Amino acid sequence: MARILTLTLNPALDLTVQLARLEPGQVNRSEAMHTHAAGKGVNVAQVLADLGHQLTVCGFLGDSNPQAFEALMARRGFVDAFVRVPGETRSNIKLAEHDGRITDLNGPGPLVSEQARQALLYKLDLIAPGHDAVVVAGSLPQGVSPEWLQALLLRLKNLGLKVALDTSGAALRAGLAATPWLIKPNGEELAEALQVPATSLQSQAETAARLQAQGIEHVVISHGAEGVNWFSGAPALQALPPKVQVASTVGAGDSLLAGMLHGLLSGHGAEQTLRTATAIAAQAVTQIGFGISDRAQLAQLESGVRVHALTEQ
Amino acid sequence: MARILTLTLNPALDLTVQLARLEPGQVNRSEAMHTHAAGKGVNVAQVLADLGHQLTVCGFLGDSNPQAFEALMARRGFVDAFVRVPGETRSNIKLAEHDGRITDLNGPGPLVSEQARQALLYKLDLIAPGHDAVVVAGSLPQGVSPEWLQALLLRLKNLGLKVALDTSGAALRAGLAATPWLIKPNGEELAEALQVPATSLQSQAETAARLQAQGIEHVVISHGAEGVNWFSGAPALQALPPKVQVASTVGAGDSLLAGMLHGLLSGHGAEQTLRTATAIAAQAVTQIGFGISDRAQLAQLESGVRVHALTEQ
Repeated sequence: MARILTLTLNPALDLTVQLARLEPGQVNRSEAMHTHAAGKGVNVAQVLADLGHQLTVCGFLGDSNPQAFEALMARRGFVDAFVRVPGETRSNIKLAEHDGRITDLNGPGPLVSEQARQALLYKLDLIAPGHDAVVVAGSLPQGVSPEWLQALLLRLKNLGLKVALDTSGAALRAGLAATPWLIKPNGEELAEALQVPATSLQSQAETAARLQAQGIEHVVISHGAEGVNWFSGAPALQALPPKVQVASTVGAGDSLLAGMLHGLLSGHGAEQTLRTATAIAAQAVTQIGFGISDRAQLAQLESGVRVHALTEQ
Repeated sequence: MARILTLTLNPALDLTVQLARLEPGQVNRSEAMHTHAAGKGVNVAQVLADLGHQLTVCGFLGDSNPQAFEALMARRGFVDAFVRVPGETRSNIKLAEHDGRITDLNGPGPLVSEQARQALLYKLDLIAPGHDAVVVAGSLPQGVSPEWLQALLLRLKNLGLKVALDTSGAALRAGLAATPWLIKPNGEELAEALQVPATSLQSQAETAARLQAQGIEHVVISHGAEGVNWFSGAPALQALPPKVQVASTVGAGDSLLAGMLHGLLSGHGAEQTLRTATAIAAQAVTQIGFGISDRAQLAQLESGVRVHALTEQ
C-alpha cells in the first residue's frame, strides 16, 4: 500500500444529460441527469483507492460548488488538500441523445490568482514529502501557465517525490522539460507536444529513447484499443488489450495511469504491471463510469491481455 | 412580520449556461454557468424574506444534491423543513445563446414514495400550525397525484392556515376543489384548468365570481405585462405595471404572489397591496434573477403602477 498524492489543477463537475433528441430553441425533456466530481487526478485517485492505496487529493476547487467533491472525498476517505478559490469549479455538460450523438458544453473554470498559486505551493511543501509519488494530471486553469506547471513539477521532484505527469499540449511540452519520472500521453498528444508528425512505431521508439535519455524513466504511450507501449528498461513492452464491448471510454486513460503506478509502487514485475494496468483500462471501457468494481472480471481481462517485447514484433 | 410556510413539492436546480452558439454534436465552449436552487415555493420564500417575513420552506428534496438548497436556506435564515427523498432533485438547464435563443433541458425529479409523502404530512402536522399562511407552489413530482395535493390542501386548511395555491393543469384543477384562500394562475392556466376557452375579461369576471362563490377568497389572475386582475371584495381591481426593460421574466409570477401575501398578511389596504405586488413583479422583470435589491427602484415602480376598479373601464 502506497501513499499517493494526486494534483488536479482544473477539476470539473461532470453532468451527463440523457435525452431522446436535442431540439435547439425548444423545451426538451431529459430522461436522466447524473452529476459527479471529475478531473483526471480525481479519477486516478479513485482507481488507486480501489487498488488499496492511501490518497491525498489536491489542486484548485471553486468555493461556491465544492459539495460533490467534498462528498466524494469523504466517501472515499481521501485527504482533502484542495485549495479553494473564489467562484465555481467548471461544469462539463454532456448531452447524450438516443442515436448516440453527444454534444459537449465545456465551461470555464475559476481564475486562479497569484495568492491561490502560492497557497498551493505552501501546502505542497508541507504535505507532499509524506507521499511515495505524486500524479499531476489534466489541463491548466486560467491563471496557471505551462511555465508555472514546470516549476511546480521541479519543486515536487526536489521534495523527493516520484512525479507522474498526464497532460497535453503546451502543458505537456513544458512539463517534459522538468523530466518527470513517468509520462502517459497518447500517441497524438505526444506528437502534438513535441511538434512532430503523428509517429510510426519506429519513430515513437526513437522519441521515447530521447525522452528516456533526458531522464524520464517511464514513457507510457497509449493507443486506445490498439494497446499500450511502455518504454522503460530494455526491452520496451507492448500490451494489447482483449476486445471488449465499449460502454464509455471515460476514465480509461486515468485507469491505465493508476494501474501503472500501482504496479510500479508495489514492486510488481514489468510484465505483470503492464498487464494489470491494461486490464484495468479495458475494464473502465466496459463501464459507463470506471473503477474496479468486479475483481473476477478484472482477472479475466488480465488473462486476455497479450504482452510482448516491442522488438519481438 | 408574518410567519409563512412555503411548500415546493418539485423543486429544481436551475443551471444557466451562456454560450455563443449551440452546435449539436460538437464540443461547445460555454462562457459562464450559474447554478441556483429554485422552484416556485423557494422563489416566493426569498421575496417574502426580502419583505421582512419569517420563512419555513418545505417539500421534497433529492438527498444526493441538496447542497445548493441547504446553502440558500442557511444564507437566508429559512427553517429547513424539506423531506429528503432518495435521488437527485431535478436539474433544469437553460442554454442561452448570443442571439437570444434559449434551449431548455428539463430533468426528471426523484420518485416520491408513500413513505416520503407520509413523512411530509407528519412534519406539516407538527410545524404548520405555527404559521400565518402557507404557499403551495409549482408542479407535482412523480409519485404525487393531483388527488393527494387536494387532500394536502384540505389538511392545511384544517390546521387553520390560509392556503395560497400557485400551480397549473390537473394540479390546479384538483386544488381548486379544496377551495384555497388565494389562487394566482395566469389567464391561460386558469382557462386550461377549468377546461374553458381562453377568457375575455367579461367571462373571466364570471369565472372568478364562481370561484369566489365556492369559497376562494382571493382570485388573482396575472397577464404578464398586461397587468393583474384581482377578484376579491367589490369592486375587483386591475393593476397595470409601468413599462420596463425586460431582462428576464424568471420569478415574476412568484414575486407577484409574494407581494400579494405581504400586503394581505400585513393588513395593507387593497389598492396598496395590489400596487406594491405589481411593482415587485415588475422589478423582477428588470433583473436576470428576482428579489427586492433596490428599494428606491421599487418605490419608483410603485408610483408607476396604475390601479383601478375593473368596473371603471
